[in-house]
Amino acid sequence: MADVLKNQKNVTQNNLPSELIHSESEKLPYSERRGFLKKSLGLAGIAASVGMGEKLLAGTENLPPNSPTWSRKLGSGVLTNPYGKPSEFEKHIQRRTVDWLTPDRIASISFTPLAELKGIITPNGLVFERYHSGIPEIDPQEHRLMIHGMVDRPIILTMDDLKRFPSTSFIRFIECPANGGMEWRGAQMDALQFTHGMLSCCEWTGVLLSTLLQEVGVKKEASWILAEGADGAHMSRSIPMSKAMDDAIIVYAQNGEPLRPEQGYPVRLINPGWEGNTAIKWLRRLEVGDKPWHHREETSKYTDLMPDGRSREFSYEQECNSVVSFPCPEKPLKEKGLYEVEGLAWSGRGKIKGVDVSFDGGKNWRPAKLKGLVLPKSLTRYSLPWKWDGSPALIQSRAHDETGYVQPTYTQLREVRGTNSIYHKNAVHTWKLHATGEVTNVQIT
Amino acid sequence: MADVLKNQKNVTQNNLPSELIHSESEKLPYSERRGFLKKSLGLAGIAASVGMGEKLLAGTENLPPNSPTWSRKLGSGVLTNPYGKPSEFEKHIQRRTVDWLTPDRIASISFTPLAELKGIITPNGLVFERYHSGIPEIDPQEHRLMIHGMVDRPIILTMDDLKRFPSTSFIRFIECPANGGMEWRGAQMDALQFTHGMLSCCEWTGVLLSTLLQEVGVKKEASWILAEGADGAHMSRSIPMSKAMDDAIIVYAQNGEPLRPEQGYPVRLINPGWEGNTAIKWLRRLEVGDKPWHHREETSKYTDLMPDGRSREFSYEQECNSVVSFPCPEKPLKEKGLYEVEGLAWSGRGKIKGVDVSFDGGKNWRPAKLKGLVLPKSLTRYSLPWKWDGSPALIQSRAHDETGYVQPTYTQLREVRGTNSIYHKNAVHTWKLHATGEVTNVQIT
Repeated sequence: MADVLKNQKNVTQNNLPSELIHSESEKLPYSERRGFLKKSLGLAGIAASVGMGEKLLAGTENLPPNSPTWSRKLGSGVLTNPYGKPSEFEKHIQRRTVDWLTPDRIASISFTPLAELKGIITPNGLVFERYHSGIPEIDPQEHRLMIHGMVDRPIILTMDDLKRFPSTSFIRFIECPANGGMEWRGAQMDALQFTHGMLSCCEWTGVLLSTLLQEVGVKKEASWILAEGADGAHMSRSIPMSKAMDDAIIVYAQNGEPLRPEQGYPVRLINPGWEGNTAIKWLRRLEVGDKPWHHREETSKYTDLMPDGRSREFSYEQECNSVVSFPCPEKPLKEKGLYEVEGLAWSGRGKIKGVDVSFDGGKNWRPAKLKGLVLPKSLTRYSLPWKWDGSPALIQSRAHDETGYVQPTYTQLREVRGTNSIYHKNAVHTWKLHATGEVTNVQIT
Repeated sequence: MADVLKNQKNVTQNNLPSELIHSESEKLPYSERRGFLKKSLGLAGIAASVGMGEKLLAGTENLPPNSPTWSRKLGSGVLTNPYGKPSEFEKHIQRRTVDWLTPDRIASISFTPLAELKGIITPNGLVFERYHSGIPEIDPQEHRLMIHGMVDRPIILTMDDLKRFPSTSFIRFIECPANGGMEWRGAQMDALQFTHGMLSCCEWTGVLLSTLLQEVGVKKEASWILAEGADGAHMSRSIPMSKAMDDAIIVYAQNGEPLRPEQGYPVRLINPGWEGNTAIKWLRRLEVGDKPWHHREETSKYTDLMPDGRSREFSYEQECNSVVSFPCPEKPLKEKGLYEVEGLAWSGRGKIKGVDVSFDGGKNWRPAKLKGLVLPKSLTRYSLPWKWDGSPALIQSRAHDETGYVQPTYTQLREVRGTNSIYHKNAVHTWKLHATGEVTNVQIT
């Protein structure tokens, strides 16, 4: 303790420093006086409104300047977990499912806890899951990727072969096109995890599909590729040659380490910005052809029944979208005062250009600031300061991307797509903030 | 199987397609003929030299076009692991320690398996460990951060308080200044994990220290800050006010999720580009003053004894450095042929500007390509194609950063620093590639 206190005046061991308590109790009016919103700093002074004086009075043993109990002994050593894991205090941060949504957990979904995340990277343990016949357990030594069809030199690659090609890395989001599908159907889930959690963002590493196609020599008349997984469903999608030759990538690593089993270990196709279900996991086969295959998962599913009775097929792009991540149902407000309102925006068409936020259900909009890295086809975080006066509010965000596309309202989206769609819901989302500080999910059309 | 094969001609179920075997056996000479190095594509054709014909003859059951065994059953469902974990086949990818290096595992080090990583993000489970008295187990509800000393309004923050301030995220490396220290002392470890593995790179999220200092009001005459951890050692370092007001950040999240216990949960100071040991974990106290404190870990340790008998103190910046990550001792070459040689470069002074690679111990240098994101004070990945003819080689890389600083040789570094240093070894590193394809660690001065 001597060491702890040696540069610290006017504090008494085993007692709270009265000087600090005094200054804390004075801070609230001080900070309030400064008028944060006008300051370039934005939200400084925010801590003052949290009622620290009260907290300081409750129990003293572990409070500064005392050395808390955990400082008075040795902790656990290196390699307690050779591969680390989160704190026991954060066990609630996990993927979750909605049990009524699918008949079983084999062909099912789990959702990323977006309300608990910061920045733009989704840690691998929390990337959302979507399986059509569960996770196959694949020995990478036994796995092969076959590339054949309308090519000059069909090839069968081992994982070692694949890793000898030049690799590329980039940070891109991946989103199931059914993200928000429950909203379309009137199931207003009171949780960001369930309204938008089929969405994650990682640094992916692998070989550009164009590199492999150059290796096998694509025949002139070829224009489509079938990608097929090694899961029980042999999940497959048809990919146009233009995407294959653009930024499609055969990935074997995510956030630095090998792909997780849930994400297609040992190898997966990623089509940046496109429907997550085109990102074929456990990739075993790429067949080059001259027309799409119209397989089950691109005809009976992953199409949109339009008002005229026809189906929109191959609707690959994940349109510009956004959501407020704080406050949200999982993160209510505890009291009036100044907050940094935060959210996520993303577009399958490129970079996010801007996000506006409304606190009155879309009548008035204020521009948010884009925070940190702004990358194409990646999650982008935005924020703005907001002082809550305790009144109910309808909080929305509306993103636009570098192509000029603006996120639509429900009315605008339904005018074009009708009412049968399950996929591609990117309408402006609304959280209702109640006077209690609780947040619920409402649909404003 | 019918579905798998329906678009695939000339293949026989339960037998390998003779067409593919034939084309594979022809591929080697074809690809070799093309002269990859002259092609803009760089390394396409690399797979051809891996001897796939032979592999195709060994066992047929799981080889394409057959549906492998794992495709013939349902896999495991969602939430098998609500918080996911790596594949069982990748269990060897973990942190490791060097047992003779420290007397116990409480005040010790574990190293990141850099040879196994891709891109620039280090997944949280593999970020290197360095403790002075082990990992304290801290209840975030009980933890407090006190800011006091030469300030107008001393403050004690809960984690909830801290999270109400505006947050910032960025990707930055963190490196122990003792990284490479074993090299200085002649212990040439034959593993990239041990030569350079006290190095990781994450997306960090938290509150800029300057924001908190503005909140408490720093007195005019203040020029230094003491940061102190809540571990048993109360590990502490003196930080100049200039860094505190620049990019120092009080972080509570890494790669999207809460800090890991090993990394200072619930809150840590990060000084981007500076010695990892200034990045105080389990941060409990920031004291503002007008001179450095000269505590134990900045006098008896983390200083450099110079040739004139004086000690270099407060040598904060991690200088520009680089290393070849493939090939390396953990990743030997299996045969002659074309490879993508890869590595990592980083500088505490800013962005990496370029990396040159030598295959003859520094006589000749070839420029590498910087891959993916090139961010300041972040890991940067580089690569270049290289055709190995089977001869022994001395492989080196030499990075330079945007300030013009060029990574020195051992001779150049010793001319300035002498021979007593343990910290800040950033001399050009050499891997010896043997005719067998094995790689060992040698020191070329």
